[in-house]
Amino acid sequence: MSQSQTPEQVLDTQENYAPSKRDEDVGEGPQCSHRMLNFSDALLSIIATVMILPVTHTEISPEQRFDKTIETLLATKIAVYLMTFLIVTAAWAAHTRLFQLIGNIDDTLALLNLVCMMTITLLPYTFSLMVTFPDVPLGIFLFCMCVIAIGAVQALIVVYAFHSPHLLSPQILQLQSAHRALCWQRILLVILRGPTLCFAAAVFSLFFFPVSYLLMAMIIFLPYISKAISWCRERLMGHEDPPALPTEFTFDLYELLSKERMEAFSDGVYAIVATLLILDICEDNVPDPQDVKVKFHGSLVAALGVYGPRFLAYFGSFATVGLLWSTHHSLFLHVRTATRTMGLLNTLSLAFVGGLPLAYQQTSTFAQQPHDELERVRISCAIIFFASMFQFAIWATALLRQAETLQPPVWFGGQEHAFLFAKLALYPCTSLLAFVATFFLSRLSTAIFHVMQIAMPPTFLLLSLLLRLLRRGLGQPVQLWSGTTGEANPQSQLLPAP
Amino acid sequence: MSQSQTPEQVLDTQENYAPSKRDEDVGEGPQCSHRMLNFSDALLSIIATVMILPVTHTEISPEQRFDKTIETLLATKIAVYLMTFLIVTAAWAAHTRLFQLIGNIDDTLALLNLVCMMTITLLPYTFSLMVTFPDVPLGIFLFCMCVIAIGAVQALIVVYAFHSPHLLSPQILQLQSAHRALCWQRILLVILRGPTLCFAAAVFSLFFFPVSYLLMAMIIFLPYISKAISWCRERLMGHEDPPALPTEFTFDLYELLSKERMEAFSDGVYAIVATLLILDICEDNVPDPQDVKVKFHGSLVAALGVYGPRFLAYFGSFATVGLLWSTHHSLFLHVRTATRTMGLLNTLSLAFVGGLPLAYQQTSTFAQQPHDELERVRISCAIIFFASMFQFAIWATALLRQAETLQPPVWFGGQEHAFLFAKLALYPCTSLLAFVATFFLSRLSTAIFHVMQIAMPPTFLLLSLLLRLLRRGLGQPVQLWSGTTGEANPQSQLLPAP
Repeated sequence: MSQSQTPEQVLDTQENYAPSKRDEDVGEGPQCSHRMLNFSDALLSIIATVMILPVTHTEISPEQRFDKTIETLLATKIAVYLMTFLIVTAAWAAHTRLFQLIGNIDDTLALLNLVCMMTITLLPYTFSLMVTFPDVPLGIFLFCMCVIAIGAVQALIVVYAFHSPHLLSPQILQLQSAHRALCWQRILLVILRGPTLCFAAAVFSLFFFPVSYLLMAMIIFLPYISKAISWCRERLMGHEDPPALPTEFTFDLYELLSKERMEAFSDGVYAIVATLLILDICEDNVPDPQDVKVKFHGSLVAALGVYGPRFLAYFGSFATVGLLWSTHHSLFLHVRTATRTMGLLNTLSLAFVGGLPLAYQQTSTFAQQPHDELERVRISCAIIFFASMFQFAIWATALLRQAETLQPPVWFGGQEHAFLFAKLALYPCTSLLAFVATFFLSRLSTAIFHVMQIAMPPTFLLLSLLLRLLRRGLGQPVQLWSGTTGEANPQSQLLPAP
Repeated sequence: MSQSQTPEQVLDTQENYAPSKRDEDVGEGPQCSHRMLNFSDALLSIIATVMILPVTHTEISPEQRFDKTIETLLATKIAVYLMTFLIVTAAWAAHTRLFQLIGNIDDTLALLNLVCMMTITLLPYTFSLMVTFPDVPLGIFLFCMCVIAIGAVQALIVVYAFHSPHLLSPQILQLQSAHRALCWQRILLVILRGPTLCFAAAVFSLFFFPVSYLLMAMIIFLPYISKAISWCRERLMGHEDPPALPTEFTFDLYELLSKERMEAFSDGVYAIVATLLILDICEDNVPDPQDVKVKFHGSLVAALGVYGPRFLAYFGSFATVGLLWSTHHSLFLHVRTATRTMGLLNTLSLAFVGGLPLAYQQTSTFAQQPHDELERVRISCAIIFFASMFQFAIWATALLRQAETLQPPVWFGGQEHAFLFAKLALYPCTSLLAFVATFFLSRLSTAIFHVMQIAMPPTFLLLSLLLRLLRRGLGQPVQLWSGTTGEANPQSQLLPAP
């Protein structure tokens, strides 16, 4: 038997085949129960995204024109959707921060986490109530109660973990006991400030519920407002109160996000959005057996032919979701660490990606209601524009502190810089063009929109082929998705303390 | 400023905070684009699971009794669901095997993968057609066409990868060119044997479609049948034809599954099942604004009170999904490598987990249709029993080759053995008891079922508390979820060649 591998090589490759085991053997790090966090990320991203369903299922009867009332109705629903999406991501962010402190997980903690997840799954139901009964405050009240319950369970997890020191991450265990108590207070503050605001919102919902919406919107921006205030104070008055915790530690806890969990959450949103598209097709585009018999004389093929344009819209929407995921992937491949501002922009981008089923639903009904296609194309273009624009903004923000946040190949003047720029700028530009086209070429707007969606994958392919040819001409290596092409500068790996 | 960390420690902990980056820096391993595989796993698991929706949405009017016709209808639908679920997992398995050979991913490959994913998302639609029009062969025909298209795209990925050697995994690159060609042929065979059978099924669907179902069922069991035949031949006739590839390599390629991807796929199924439960609630349990005005005199609280029993059923079902996930997690924490038989059992277990929304739907309608609760409780018990029994079977199979497949603490006589046994046996036993109870205590069966579902989380908690007390008594360390408690035996880490 001929064999071209030495025994050592065989062992080496066998080890390669069980990377997760290797990860877990590394042991006591903060990503210890990798799988529990992955499961939580998947659930949270799905829950945040299915909030769009009550919006897409807004029933507009064929007789109604797309007039001001419906526009207002849709706009309100979209605003409420964006708010609830962002509140779920705030709960996710609290979950991320909490589990940065916990190194090991036992059965009790796992059960508490499941209780937390179950409470979170109730949020879409309360959201449905809010949307179906906009004048009754019960929906808001129940929503707030759920957020309070989530906060209570998370606080319970903190208390339990700090009373069982073997569960804490080694980073916390290294701290002196006074620091540890401070750390405990801070994480409780992070976890409970959302629920506290929600408690106030729940109280107000009984009297005057517009205030409740205002309070709930505050939950999302509170961390950024408080950070901005403290930054301003620092600038104006100089360093007055020295931080009580070691600086590097606070920086880690408050500034950096776990890049891995951000990716997992984003992947969940993209995957479920792609699936929601097909769920809509499964529900609406299966003809009624009675109809097939009567209208189409039993010919199923003829009955399906009616839905042709919808499938065109489906292919276009799927291509958009897929390519937005692909640009997100390309971007994060070159991201070294993610700051909070990048996290906020990523969340906003995801909120609009979650709106893509609405865009699909708007464009797939062209065939039936051709008279208000202009408004529908505009809504769809706006959703795609914002989703891709916020992705671009992530990159722009990262470039401001490129030495800390990005890999060297995409820095200004790096070999990948121009290519990533082109990739990220493609969708904002084309969707903006399609939007503008609705004002000048109103007759062709639908055609332009569909051509834009379908033509995108070939464009991306052309772009990467062009790049490869250019590279060959310059004698540079071909770019792979492993992110190892650029020579990492060992000096710049170290994060400077702020 | 007091600081209890040395600069080295700070660096160390900062590195801990970016484990994904560390993973990617390891570089050229077969798990290179970790994120693309995760995204594919999430999409495939969601698509496999949403196949249950046309089954749960079987409309049974309140007047109909749960008689033979409906039983046959449901049984047929469940059988077709199981088949399509298993075919999607077969496509997933082919995807896993394919990407074991590919080390790096470029833009073209990523786009091809997206095309493959898009074709896969069309499967639930064809399945809806199959279920809605059981007498028209068009659904089967389209389903087969989709599977053929998926196979074609995967074959294209193989051809592209083998023509761009920089994309192959280093393991393949180490092989001699003759071996590499053989390897290429084998992977094409693995990928194309499903689509070939589907082609035959598509041809038969035009004449006599029951044969198509038979052929499609063969796709699932073909690998196991062919393996069993070759095993028998080996036993009967001795080693006749020496394997042309290095043995360790074939063993890796054909016997072992990537444990990480199995976990990712399973997590996706559990997460989406939990979400499907709440989607049903969002759709069915939001009262109609007109009804609230007329029937409940505008009181939303009174209108929601009607749905009380449904929420009880929801909590029970969520607890079941959560705890089954938790036992799956506990089991795989102690699994070192997964064999194909374990993979098949895991898939079967997941197929029944995917059936849990049906169980929820059956038990949540008790309030309206109390007369046929016996049948409904039996269906639900059977689904839970099979889901948990196949999990138990994974463990039993693993124990047969415990030195290779399991970590030492759960071997026969290991310190964790009894505890894991108890955890895994809990659900099969209780669901069997509840099933048997429907025959003797038919009046109480509903109550018993609900009590069983609700009482499970406290039971698990008690079990783990009991264990901890026992451990303290014996002076053993507390078991954590990091899987590092057991002293790994470095000798047994090496896999013996078969």
